[in-house]
Amino acid sequence: MTTALEVHLASRPKGVPRLENFAFVETALPAPAAGEVLVRNHVMSLDPYMRGRMSAAKSYAEPYALGEVMHGGAVGEVLESTVDSLVPGDFVLHGFGWRDHAIVRADAVAKVDPAVAPLGAYLGVLGMPGLTAYAGLLDVAEFRTGDTVFVSAAAGAVGSLVGQIARLRGAKRVIGSAGGPEKVQHLLDLGFDAALDYKAAPIGEQLAAAAPDGIDVYFDNVGGDHLEAAISAMNVHGRIAVCGMISLYNATEPTPAPRNLMQLVGKRITMRGMLVSDHAGRRADFIREVGGWVRSGELRYTETVVEGLRNAPEAFLSLLSGGNTGKMLVRLV
Amino acid sequence: MTTALEVHLASRPKGVPRLENFAFVETALPAPAAGEVLVRNHVMSLDPYMRGRMSAAKSYAEPYALGEVMHGGAVGEVLESTVDSLVPGDFVLHGFGWRDHAIVRADAVAKVDPAVAPLGAYLGVLGMPGLTAYAGLLDVAEFRTGDTVFVSAAAGAVGSLVGQIARLRGAKRVIGSAGGPEKVQHLLDLGFDAALDYKAAPIGEQLAAAAPDGIDVYFDNVGGDHLEAAISAMNVHGRIAVCGMISLYNATEPTPAPRNLMQLVGKRITMRGMLVSDHAGRRADFIREVGGWVRSGELRYTETVVEGLRNAPEAFLSLLSGGNTGKMLVRLV
Repeated sequence: MTTALEVHLASRPKGVPRLENFAFVETALPAPAAGEVLVRNHVMSLDPYMRGRMSAAKSYAEPYALGEVMHGGAVGEVLESTVDSLVPGDFVLHGFGWRDHAIVRADAVAKVDPAVAPLGAYLGVLGMPGLTAYAGLLDVAEFRTGDTVFVSAAAGAVGSLVGQIARLRGAKRVIGSAGGPEKVQHLLDLGFDAALDYKAAPIGEQLAAAAPDGIDVYFDNVGGDHLEAAISAMNVHGRIAVCGMISLYNATEPTPAPRNLMQLVGKRITMRGMLVSDHAGRRADFIREVGGWVRSGELRYTETVVEGLRNAPEAFLSLLSGGNTGKMLVRLV
Repeated sequence: MTTALEVHLASRPKGVPRLENFAFVETALPAPAAGEVLVRNHVMSLDPYMRGRMSAAKSYAEPYALGEVMHGGAVGEVLESTVDSLVPGDFVLHGFGWRDHAIVRADAVAKVDPAVAPLGAYLGVLGMPGLTAYAGLLDVAEFRTGDTVFVSAAAGAVGSLVGQIARLRGAKRVIGSAGGPEKVQHLLDLGFDAALDYKAAPIGEQLAAAAPDGIDVYFDNVGGDHLEAAISAMNVHGRIAVCGMISLYNATEPTPAPRNLMQLVGKRITMRGMLVSDHAGRRADFIREVGGWVRSGELRYTETVVEGLRNAPEAFLSLLSGGNTGKMLVRLV
């Protein structure tokens, strides 16, 4: 019998989550039933959207159940299998993170090859954040060669890829925002034309100065003042992909911004919310194109890796306050 | 020599415009030069967008010049012509309203036939407001048969057409908002399935009750609380055409709403600003389809007609506070 260490939602946060909202629980796992496999997780994903699932309010993802184990992307090794398609030693991508072992239905996992890419890449550049960046920029924001692109949270897992894909696809100018001088330098290292430290000065003033000819595309991960700045800087027929609004996730009151939404009319701006789950049809294109750039070294990805499941809650709180550069991962093995 | 009575912008309004912002000026017109015609205006248009032009701030239309005559749509009779294509007695649609006579370049007017439709119709149902409603609903909001549609300022020139076009194109349910019991009754007379009096109770509560299965399309003429209500009521993959935000036009401070913009993500809402000038390519379709419905009596239009240019400023102030039902016109002859 296997004992799993799991992270449970102990209580729902009000505003900024705290460590006491999480609980560690040891659970005895049964042997896998027919059609199931036992997986030992090697690496798990931490993502901003998980903050929404900690609240009871209906969001696009189901709320985590109170007193139950949390969920999220993970890659693990098959220890026991009841199906022909998977054998012990296989590695699989699945949605049963926040625990070190899991019993998973075989039809709910996807086999991955550790020889093709490091396990963490399947949770980042070649996984959900990568497809989010690719489909969000190309399809939702309808990026075109010659566009000037602004992306917020640009040092994050999604934002750093948005900026690089825009550059590789022929953007006129790529501008990113992030918090602090190290991240700003990191963006310049990745080939961004301009990098704005939102902690140093109002983002609206900085963006206006960095984009004297305006912007054509804004990829929004932040909302609030960033969105307002982008609308003000936007050119006629500009497009906004709304991927997330991390500045609001811990808000306890509705946020009074942007205040310039009226500009959508005169500039004929299109603003479109997105969830990556709508874009599975772009997966093959994404893997071919982005995978190629990763292999050639034209596109780089960064990971912030925290060791051990016991440190996952603290790592998640750090993610929400911008403590990561690139993809935030927890290594379990 | 002809003397024109003109309405000039005497001063720029702060907040709600006042009569003192307008001045009446008599101007001696020269004889039309080669390529020009002298027109006597019979009817002129008053439109909410004119409020934006009274301010100095750059908007999608050029600001009216201080101390100069204002502009807007009008239909007039040719009195003198220097070109072969127009003869005295012809009626023409042009952009030189806010005056009783004008010298106009012949290539800046479009001939209209008073036998086909009353002159006012060329400024309303068959003119700019009509094309705005048609292209805004069908192209910008991507209306589809079976959609539930909500439109604000639904008793206005554009809104009343949006609701009727949606009904005639096979909407599941058409909901409109307007101010006061007479307008609400008018919407029901036009075939709206539900009509909400925004002055009677919070629009969000009313909309939620009137659309228990949610809305798929929102045609925004109002902004503010109406937009917030629409986002909350919106179904997944809903679409918002932003045509105007009349609730903000007299605002002296930026308005912090909607506060629920984050819902764009989970619901994958598309929100798109529009100007009718982008949609000239739809004019032939629009005239054929909407003209047909007008002739068959399936689509009705209403006008609020004020007599005399001297009453135009007061009529315009009334328009901004919802004093009109349907298209607001000033009759000069």
